[in-house]
Amino acid sequence: MASAKPASGEDSLIARYFRPLATDPGAFGLDDDAAALRPDGNDVVVTVDAIVEGVHFLPDDPPDTVARKALRVNLSDLAAKGAVPAGFVLTLALRSPDEAWLKPFAAALGEDAAQFGCPLLGGDTVSTPGPLMVSVTAFGRVPPGKMVHRSGAKAGERVMVTGTIGDAALGLAILRGGKVHAAASDKAVREALIGRYRVPQPRVTLATIVRDHAGAAMDVSDGLAGDLAKLCGVSGVSAVIDLPSIPLSDAARDLVSRGIVGLETLVAGGDDYEILCTVAEDRVEAFAHAVREAGAAVSSIGTVVARDGDPKFIDAQGKEIALERLSYSHF
Amino acid sequence: MASAKPASGEDSLIARYFRPLATDPGAFGLDDDAAALRPDGNDVVVTVDAIVEGVHFLPDDPPDTVARKALRVNLSDLAAKGAVPAGFVLTLALRSPDEAWLKPFAAALGEDAAQFGCPLLGGDTVSTPGPLMVSVTAFGRVPPGKMVHRSGAKAGERVMVTGTIGDAALGLAILRGGKVHAAASDKAVREALIGRYRVPQPRVTLATIVRDHAGAAMDVSDGLAGDLAKLCGVSGVSAVIDLPSIPLSDAARDLVSRGIVGLETLVAGGDDYEILCTVAEDRVEAFAHAVREAGAAVSSIGTVVARDGDPKFIDAQGKEIALERLSYSHF
Repeated sequence: MASAKPASGEDSLIARYFRPLATDPGAFGLDDDAAALRPDGNDVVVTVDAIVEGVHFLPDDPPDTVARKALRVNLSDLAAKGAVPAGFVLTLALRSPDEAWLKPFAAALGEDAAQFGCPLLGGDTVSTPGPLMVSVTAFGRVPPGKMVHRSGAKAGERVMVTGTIGDAALGLAILRGGKVHAAASDKAVREALIGRYRVPQPRVTLATIVRDHAGAAMDVSDGLAGDLAKLCGVSGVSAVIDLPSIPLSDAARDLVSRGIVGLETLVAGGDDYEILCTVAEDRVEAFAHAVREAGAAVSSIGTVVARDGDPKFIDAQGKEIALERLSYSHF
Repeated sequence: MASAKPASGEDSLIARYFRPLATDPGAFGLDDDAAALRPDGNDVVVTVDAIVEGVHFLPDDPPDTVARKALRVNLSDLAAKGAVPAGFVLTLALRSPDEAWLKPFAAALGEDAAQFGCPLLGGDTVSTPGPLMVSVTAFGRVPPGKMVHRSGAKAGERVMVTGTIGDAALGLAILRGGKVHAAASDKAVREALIGRYRVPQPRVTLATIVRDHAGAAMDVSDGLAGDLAKLCGVSGVSAVIDLPSIPLSDAARDLVSRGIVGLETLVAGGDDYEILCTVAEDRVEAFAHAVREAGAAVSSIGTVVARDGDPKFIDAQGKEIALERLSYSHF
């Protein structure tokens, strides 16, 4: 049991660090028990993702990156659903109200909230004897019925993915030390990969483009291979993926070509926070053009096919590669 | 870091235990990354409350009561805001996927979701090496602009509270052993008080009545005295409370009269999950009548006054009682 102390501790902490973030009128300055979200005729898209110290981030990750990751993994979900951010609520489980940690955490959270147009609407701060945990529930708006689903993939559609895959998994491998750390000798490269792990770049600017063009979409958070298998599973289809078409950064390509990591590690790695979607053939060009106009890269990596079972991954020689594992699972 | 295993562990756990709860069409059978909430022209009221093992519930509390408490503390917030439940999302941080725990947890959560018309819309299940934690973000609907605020209290309004105060604090005291446990010799009484601590009775049926009549409202979760101080603070008023008017159960009254616990312990105790509100004099009768018609008790315990500072508590002799602490705080 936490000891009972004057209420001012928890309240003054919230007032000092989080009230400045509650810029939306519906947050009522965090002075109420609840927030009010005005949907303006839209559906409210709701997503929730929590990050736990030692599981989703490392104990010595800087507080500002923890804050950004907690919000951005949810913004990534909203973008993949075609939803424009509307706000978020926060559950913060802390061992102690460490102001040296809270100050940069809240400042970074506020910067991201402003940058992505997703204001803090409310939250709950609780004490825990365990690891730090940040759970965010984020809200977005879509016109009624227009949320983009995982389940809409149809045979014949192209499988598309934004950005590059596997960089975050390499960043985590570098933070853990070992052979990837030893092989990535260039400091700028190491920092870029670590940055991909610690601070995802959610594809918020692509939300309406995904909504306009994609048959099915999800964000890549647990590994491209496993996430694609989920998308295909709920859509009742499968896919054939051309492994060499999976977009890699120069750093990742270098590490693969030197045999430091296998491609299969990257496609099962997780933490990419790119958008994976399926697009009808006659829309591929318009979709790719719009994504590039919005400043993001996009690649066609395969085709949706009408059968059951996990996607097949085909290498440069046309041979099917069996992946040992598809993605990350908590249990 | 949790070890990476086939995705099927986490997914099959969700499928087995939580998919049956996702009865709302907007939950998409938990097959998607997000849910869609159709507000039907209403504002969406959002509230978030987390409960942590060893802080908000005891490690040996039964899983079904943990589930009910996690949802009900949020339903209590919605009711106090005048909002009708629309759904909730869940973050569940578990040490391991213990099916003997998960099965009754999910079953009870489903029963409550059905009983209170608040379906599961989505969630995130994460592994933690620390204490079990359940964070719920709940949604309710109110007509545009009609959420009831903490900040609406006006001088001259009556301070009203539903049900009885302090029973949950006594239940916790009994679970901890000590003098309250020794004094509460009747098993049925002990179980009733423990029940108040473990399984709150959220005043969901009073939501629209509160919306129709209250100037300001909040639920009593951290202790009546401290919660009233918060309500007064954000309303820019204070209150004078008649201590003998604070509603007590027979069990609580007995323990107070025998000197086992002081009234001040009960009014600062927390976990009541009753509705505290202020009602204009000319509406008190209609409000009280409607609440009683809905099957709940309600008491007038004092008056809102036009001044700053914490509420005053007056005893039967007309003397002001200084409370050592007003409520529970995490830090």
